[in-house]
Amino acid sequence: MGRTSIDINTDCGESFGNWTLGNDAMVIPEVSSVNLACGFHGGDPLTMLNTIDIATENGARVGAHPGLPDLLGFGRRMMDITPDDAYAYIVYQVGALQAALRTRGVSLQHVKPHGCLMSMVGRDAPLADAVACAIADTTDDPCVYFTAPLDGAALPKAAQRHGVRVVAEVYPDLAYDDDANVVVERTKVAKAPADCAAQLRRFLDDGRVQTLSGALLPLEAESICVHGDGPNAAGIS
Amino acid sequence: MGRTSIDINTDCGESFGNWTLGNDAMVIPEVSSVNLACGFHGGDPLTMLNTIDIATENGARVGAHPGLPDLLGFGRRMMDITPDDAYAYIVYQVGALQAALRTRGVSLQHVKPHGCLMSMVGRDAPLADAVACAIADTTDDPCVYFTAPLDGAALPKAAQRHGVRVVAEVYPDLAYDDDANVVVERTKVAKAPADCAAQLRRFLDDGRVQTLSGALLPLEAESICVHGDGPNAAGIS
Amino acid sequence: MGRTSIDINTDCGESFGNWTLGNDAMVIPEVSSVNLACGFHGGDPLTMLNTIDIATENGARVGAHPGLPDLLGFGRRMMDITPDDAYAYIVYQVGALQAALRTRGVSLQHVKPHGCLMSMVGRDAPLADAVACAIADTTDDPCVYFTAPLDGAALPKAAQRHGVRVVAEVYPDLAYDDDANVVVERTKVAKAPADCAAQLRRFLDDGRVQTLSGALLPLEAESICVHGDGPNAAGIS
Amino acid sequence: MGRTSIDINTDCGESFGNWTLGNDAMVIPEVSSVNLACGFHGGDPLTMLNTIDIATENGARVGAHPGLPDLLGFGRRMMDITPDDAYAYIVYQVGALQAALRTRGVSLQHVKPHGCLMSMVGRDAPLADAVACAIADTTDDPCVYFTAPLDGAALPKAAQRHGVRVVAEVYPDLAYDDDANVVVERTKVAKAPADCAAQLRRFLDDGRVQTLSGALLPLEAESICVHGDGPNAAGIS
Repeated sequence: MGRTSIDINTDCGESFGNWTLGNDAMVIPEVSSVNLACGFHGGDPLTMLNTIDIATENGARVGAHPGLPDLLGFGRRMMDITPDDAYAYIVYQVGALQAALRTRGVSLQHVKPHGCLMSMVGRDAPLADAVACAIADTTDDPCVYFTAPLDGAALPKAAQRHGVRVVAEVYPDLAYDDDANVVVERTKVAKAPADCAAQLRRFLDDGRVQTLSGALLPLEAESICVHGDGPNAAGIS
Repeated sequence: MGRTSIDINTDCGESFGNWTLGNDAMVIPEVSSVNLACGFHGGDPLTMLNTIDIATENGARVGAHPGLPDLLGFGRRMMDITPDDAYAYIVYQVGALQAALRTRGVSLQHVKPHGCLMSMVGRDAPLADAVACAIADTTDDPCVYFTAPLDGAALPKAAQRHGVRVVAEVYPDLAYDDDANVVVERTKVAKAPADCAAQLRRFLDDGRVQTLSGALLPLEAESICVHGDGPNAAGIS
Repeated sequence: MGRTSIDINTDCGESFGNWTLGNDAMVIPEVSSVNLACGFHGGDPLTMLNTIDIATENGARVGAHPGLPDLLGFGRRMMDITPDDAYAYIVYQVGALQAALRTRGVSLQHVKPHGCLMSMVGRDAPLADAVACAIADTTDDPCVYFTAPLDGAALPKAAQRHGVRVVAEVYPDLAYDDDANVVVERTKVAKAPADCAAQLRRFLDDGRVQTLSGALLPLEAESICVHGDGPNAAGIS
Repeated sequence: MGRTSIDINTDCGESFGNWTLGNDAMVIPEVSSVNLACGFHGGDPLTMLNTIDIATENGARVGAHPGLPDLLGFGRRMMDITPDDAYAYIVYQVGALQAALRTRGVSLQHVKPHGCLMSMVGRDAPLADAVACAIADTTDDPCVYFTAPLDGAALPKAAQRHGVRVVAEVYPDLAYDDDANVVVERTKVAKAPADCAAQLRRFLDDGRVQTLSGALLPLEAESICVHGDGPNAAGIS
């Protein structure tokens, strides 16, 4: 017997100026939470407002999705920023989104670092501390989304120190190794929708994911992260 | 008999990354309010935090100084942005600064548009409306600084419509014409410090400015705007 | 009896980083010349090289498509740049493309200003002079593409002064007024493919365009500009 | 008895828009070669032209000083770019400068990677190969400046493969370790002018540098790199 309801989140608002990325109008209605780009790796001030409108019209809660200041690389290239930089970048992006939300009478639900910033705060303790501290210093109900499993990662520890609640998330469209870590492949191989659905179903029923070796490992997660090209979330929510 | 105290404001926080502009550490202690750049025409997330620290250590109140998205042109080139753009750009920049202020336990005092954005909202009613609306929608105590005289300008009208208080400001280092309008010269001619001081003294004593033709015109203003290279404000505050 | 062959040009290479714009792989094989974005309004260093490869594999000649330094606005917002700015921006973008072409053993065919820069050099003589001079100063066989009719526009005059050849172009998918000027509507209305084809057929057969009032006016043009969503050029080339 | 003449190079053209960096007008007359920023880590199209003018008026040869696409970090933060990125970024920046030089009738002398890009091509063979290949593919007389000693570094090997001449340079204002490698300290400590002069004098007389441990090691270098705040080069050239 599995869960009857669980949070589903997706990245969105990553269009920039005249360039469109993803299909927010189609995906957002299928999720309960969105991670909204804040202008550094993608997104722009007008796109942010428009995407908030789509989210609120569809009852989705909004989180900030701050990234590295690398528009050309979409925040997906490691950059050797300092903890002071990281703190300032999170504050800036979270604040920009908070003001946009305020114009719509909505409050911020959470923060989820984007791309390489997410990877970096997983393994770099001083960066993780700066990011957790920035979230604690700028939000009313500090909450960060982070990749399950939380054990061993730097950000969850820092979050605890700063009183930031951590929501662990699972990825139906990514592979896991025998330590239950996400396997990030250099060339992203699209997983078949049926395999994504199976992985998701197993997690919802059992709280387990099957690893590349075939083992079934328990994974604690409160949210499911889907991507624009992922499984249709409607059928499982 | 003149005033005994008046607000003095200055633009600051306009350094960017490795580039320094102005001398904030020297000028800020001499003023009561600062207009802090928010990353579009100048400034960056880390500079914003550092400049807030200088302001608060010196008892200066902090306002946002949002500009056009033109770092290369320092926000001093007219750009044909739409009212929707203007609204979104103000929301974004004001929010980014508000979060930075929150980390220091300080609240935002005012908003003062920068450079060409200031000129544009003076004469373009739809843009002025968008900017005033953005200030009203994002701040607790909506207040905008604007060039005196207010009569005839678009922004003060829009501000009134949206419940935004307007603080008129006078410029000791700029020339006025017989309609009491600031004369902006294409090639900025540095006014002699003694002339700036005389203009300021006359305004403080009399509430009047001398125009280029020699006439003395009354000018209502609650704040004095000084620039980094302007007269030492210490002697008059 | 009409022409048997004519140049067809299209804008391309306007993707940026992770964002795709247009469908270069599909459109470029249908044209004889491409106007390749150079990184200011769109495009980036890697996209430039990849788009040159598509062009050369399909036998299309390559021109530079320099724009205003406004990525967020896609070079479609008027900016009050000086002639010195314009000169420097053209030199920079043309040079960047020339080096990219050199790596493929190809030479630059022409320059075609993008978006608002194109409009601005049509009506502003000092800007037009700066742009024509920049083209003359940087290219072996100076050539600029410009909207027909050339009469009365600033750029063709400036081009003549600087020894830059002008190639006039006609737009099958835009409407003309009775002075044979392109009617740019604020909200771009997609013209029906059949109407585009008819306008093109008439021009090819007759050298004339039908205006909005129904009049048939002669228009001299050496090239036809198609957009990604325009008529299939294959049938008429 | 030492050399009677040697090349002295300096970085320049690193101002951006309204922000000034360094004092090019004062430093350039003292050197024989300049490394001119190309708009990625610093510099902009207009600054490039103006700096070329200063160089040519003072008889200095001009090289390109391409950097990482990180204006905010001044190209001094490691970024995980691919070899394809590196190739494209070098081509773009070198081409932009070549066109600027062409408008002044001057040709490019060399390329010297800036900041972290320089460090990265010293140790990363695929990046070094891409950069050397880009220089070979875009310049008439391929030449790269690189930090002495050349042994063991990736770029010199790649340069040899691609037929790019390498000019080794020595730094009077930096410390060397016992392997004759430059010691880059996290917090840059300004070396006393007298110590810089002594290090330079020793190198010019002896071809040796004194290491931090006091040892004197031979160092082969054809050029001396000075920084804006370094010793006055006039007395030794």
